[in-house]
Amino acid sequence: MNGVTEARAEISGGVVDLLGVLAYGELSAFDRLAEDARSAPTLAGRVALASMAGAEIGHYEMLANHLHAHGASVEEAMQPFRQHVDAFQESTAPRTWLESLVKAYVVDNLAADLYRELATVLDDEIRRIVLTVLDDTGHSAFAEREVAAAIEADSSQRDRLSLWSRRLLGEALTQAQYIVAERDGLAELIVAGSVDLSGIAALFRKLQQGHAKRMQVLGLG
Amino acid sequence: MNGVTEARAEISGGVVDLLGVLAYGELSAFDRLAEDARSAPTLAGRVALASMAGAEIGHYEMLANHLHAHGASVEEAMQPFRQHVDAFQESTAPRTWLESLVKAYVVDNLAADLYRELATVLDDEIRRIVLTVLDDTGHSAFAEREVAAAIEADSSQRDRLSLWSRRLLGEALTQAQYIVAERDGLAELIVAGSVDLSGIAALFRKLQQGHAKRMQVLGLG
Repeated sequence: MNGVTEARAEISGGVVDLLGVLAYGELSAFDRLAEDARSAPTLAGRVALASMAGAEIGHYEMLANHLHAHGASVEEAMQPFRQHVDAFQESTAPRTWLESLVKAYVVDNLAADLYRELATVLDDEIRRIVLTVLDDTGHSAFAEREVAAAIEADSSQRDRLSLWSRRLLGEALTQAQYIVAERDGLAELIVAGSVDLSGIAALFRKLQQGHAKRMQVLGLG
Repeated sequence: MNGVTEARAEISGGVVDLLGVLAYGELSAFDRLAEDARSAPTLAGRVALASMAGAEIGHYEMLANHLHAHGASVEEAMQPFRQHVDAFQESTAPRTWLESLVKAYVVDNLAADLYRELATVLDDEIRRIVLTVLDDTGHSAFAEREVAAAIEADSSQRDRLSLWSRRLLGEALTQAQYIVAERDGLAELIVAGSVDLSGIAALFRKLQQGHAKRMQVLGLG
């Protein structure tokens, strides 16, 4: 057994899958935010979304380094998830700056909740990475502020953006369900770390609840 | 005199200009690299350019924080330079992936040379920032490797890319000359820090020489 194989044996296929889907999610979020930054009506908006994009790439690098340290290729690890993550982005391409901001806010916070939930089901080393990424989220304060101000100024935006935020959640959960259904190792990892066998359903339910609470606070409930 | 005015007095108009043009340059480079990352033919290429873009936003934040700490607005500081930096980007929009890589490599290294030269003419505090940014450049190794491999594989690319790299340098220096001509404080800062009155001409000459050397090493000389 050579060194690479030994190192690789340290993380299971489920963990490689988990880090792979998180890494591709970060890379994909970078793309989305960087593109949306270009349509910002103000320099402050452009900087806010570009900074969020920069943070995502930082997270990507952390996840990629961890995979590499264990002899796994981040590119191979991401491959199975490209189609579903891309499908989410394509089905939810923002058409206005406000839709971009709502998407940035919704996805950033869903990701933070996901990382937080995963931290409770993972072993120490992976938990440390996940918590480090989590510490660095919350760059969406600008988006939250701007959306709240836009609704305040023009209440006709409220219904349209409520619908939009529901669609974002729906499409995200749809693709997440496909991913879990296709990747046994990933599903086992979540179930094994949960207190009961309803691990996956419970995870999705928590993500929905967190989203619903945030939307109420934002006035889009 | 209130606190803001006192703090603001700590850095001269020339330094605000300098940090402003560097900050907008970083923001603009982020945009360019993020857009080019989307056209990458491989996941590795996409990650390489996205990582460079992430580094630029990190530099932007460092410059913005310094301006903010001295009571200056980064948005105001960038404003006078948007037109010229945007003009550079528009006149040198890459049409192929190889042009994107050559541009990433050329601009990243020109910026590193510029930061290095500026470090010698600035006072201690600004020098520290400039050197920190400089330490973090050199993310263009991927671009360098790919361009060298592409020329090796197809020598007909050489002439086209040589021409492209000369055009990049030419357009960069043209816009830099406009900027220096329009901003007296910036010109004075460079001249004051130089050993003789030929400060600006000498700076541009050094940038050209560094570029020429790199292009020879890359096979585009």
